[in-house]
Amino acid sequence: MTAVNHQFRLDARPVGMLKASDWEYTEEALPEPADGEVLVKILYISLDPAMRGWCNEGRSYIPPVGIGDVMRALAAGEVIASKHPDFAAGDHVTGLLGVQEYAVANGAALVKVDTALAPLPVYLSTLGMPGMTAYFGLLDIGKPQEGETVVVSGAAGAVGGVVGQIAKLKGARAIGIAGGAEKCRYIIEELGFDGAIDYKANNLDEDLHRECPEGIHIYFDNVGGEVLDAALVRLARHARVIICGAISQYNATGPVAGPANYLSLLVNSASMTGFVVTDYASRYGEGAQEMAQWLAAGELKSREDIAEGLELFPETLDRLFSGGNTGKLVLAVAGG
Amino acid sequence: MTAVNHQFRLDARPVGMLKASDWEYTEEALPEPADGEVLVKILYISLDPAMRGWCNEGRSYIPPVGIGDVMRALAAGEVIASKHPDFAAGDHVTGLLGVQEYAVANGAALVKVDTALAPLPVYLSTLGMPGMTAYFGLLDIGKPQEGETVVVSGAAGAVGGVVGQIAKLKGARAIGIAGGAEKCRYIIEELGFDGAIDYKANNLDEDLHRECPEGIHIYFDNVGGEVLDAALVRLARHARVIICGAISQYNATGPVAGPANYLSLLVNSASMTGFVVTDYASRYGEGAQEMAQWLAAGELKSREDIAEGLELFPETLDRLFSGGNTGKLVLAVAGG
Repeated sequence: MTAVNHQFRLDARPVGMLKASDWEYTEEALPEPADGEVLVKILYISLDPAMRGWCNEGRSYIPPVGIGDVMRALAAGEVIASKHPDFAAGDHVTGLLGVQEYAVANGAALVKVDTALAPLPVYLSTLGMPGMTAYFGLLDIGKPQEGETVVVSGAAGAVGGVVGQIAKLKGARAIGIAGGAEKCRYIIEELGFDGAIDYKANNLDEDLHRECPEGIHIYFDNVGGEVLDAALVRLARHARVIICGAISQYNATGPVAGPANYLSLLVNSASMTGFVVTDYASRYGEGAQEMAQWLAAGELKSREDIAEGLELFPETLDRLFSGGNTGKLVLAVAGG
Repeated sequence: MTAVNHQFRLDARPVGMLKASDWEYTEEALPEPADGEVLVKILYISLDPAMRGWCNEGRSYIPPVGIGDVMRALAAGEVIASKHPDFAAGDHVTGLLGVQEYAVANGAALVKVDTALAPLPVYLSTLGMPGMTAYFGLLDIGKPQEGETVVVSGAAGAVGGVVGQIAKLKGARAIGIAGGAEKCRYIIEELGFDGAIDYKANNLDEDLHRECPEGIHIYFDNVGGEVLDAALVRLARHARVIICGAISQYNATGPVAGPANYLSLLVNSASMTGFVVTDYASRYGEGAQEMAQWLAAGELKSREDIAEGLELFPETLDRLFSGGNTGKLVLAVAGG
């Protein structure tokens, strides 16, 4: 076992797109767990759109990552030393462990996961934060009814792909918006969506009209910007818009583009509701149980897009914002 | 009784602010009621922000007013001839009777009102559409809880003034946003609001911060634009934004300004919900009963801003959009 730990630390507040100089790659001695703590060897690091927001200063749902701090990230790994009674060496866990090879964490902040039920990366994906986001956002806020039309943007991403599949499992029609023909093929042929719209084809208004002849009952938005505005135009009466993210806006250096068509909410008596997944922390077990059953029955597919090597962190994270991933983007930490 | 009826008809699709040439003042013979119909002498015409939208072409919650049609308006009047069994001469009624001196309407489209309980203009105000809008928007969508902070824009207007008063009756704090010192004085001293913000003082962000130290739990928006954006910044967690109108945008000739700060919905797990009052048509009785009790007990004040003379319709309607009214703007139809 090496006695050295490598990390990526935030070196500067990014402006616009993240760049290499926003990060510092550092090395330090392996930390020792104190009483109640656990030393985890990190195997997989989750790369999520929310990480862009965590790099900004200012008020949000959690404090920003400080300059010089190890970059915040969800990760999964194996316990190699434990001073907490609930954990032993060899256990697999997930938690906010950061972009690094090893982490010491309080046992209370870790979740033990069972790799006999699903491979470890799935616990960062469909059985982790993106899956919970899809599950509770769609079911608790959207409340899909049989026969309704559910449209989701970022449909080939970690959250969007699960949203569409759950919509189908609940008897709704699922229409996905994604960038490029390959992603559109993927969500229809592999995930079973009823329709796909390539927003890069520049025909969004007509495509939405064609795919949603009765209007959009639920729009699950991961992207914001023009796609959100186009969806607003097609809302059905009493539609529910779920604001999960706005990846098109996260690197904006000017003001965010607000949805110019928001008055569609008024004329259609519709709602637009935001949420952060931690609102549902007390109910994660409920979501994980139902999704694990769907996964086991082959009714739900979980796809991870895995890059290899901690040193690839900056460029791999950038792929999220350029649309370069299909499924959940994960960084596998090599070596150890 | 004169055998002549005068009307304002829509003569052109308005662009931007309404102008005199958008209207045609016409004269025609008094219509005769057919079986099931009622002839009403109109006494008061309701002037409402929604009328601007009714003049536009395009999809909305009701069809646009056609070019050459009598301008659509809610109005109150007295039955002077009836061929409907439920109505007799002398009855007072309200309905979508149009901007004119007399109207023939199907009895099924009229509501009989009791002028012994409240003066006739109040049935276009607190006991009419604006009151129902305030009542159901605030209580059904906003669901104010004791001690919460309710902010309402257009607070000196017909809807906003009632929203703040009902918020107080339900144990919440009421903060109003209005234009100018006199309106701010009015909502505090006459309507009993806890605080007032003059948006024309150009200090909206700081004023909201001062008046809402715990954030905004409910924001009832009548105006849109910069005021909506400023309110979004101050949302409390799980805040409810009610989109009732956007009077600042109704005369826009370019795209509507979307709320750039809409991602505040995400980080605060908040919602933004639109509605049209007719969603609640089946429950108007419930709202009218409770508000009539409050009015009778002196716990709710209804203020009407009454202009005299049908011929003043165009310029009086313009006052809505220039902020020139305090309370419900009503046109009294002279003569007859």
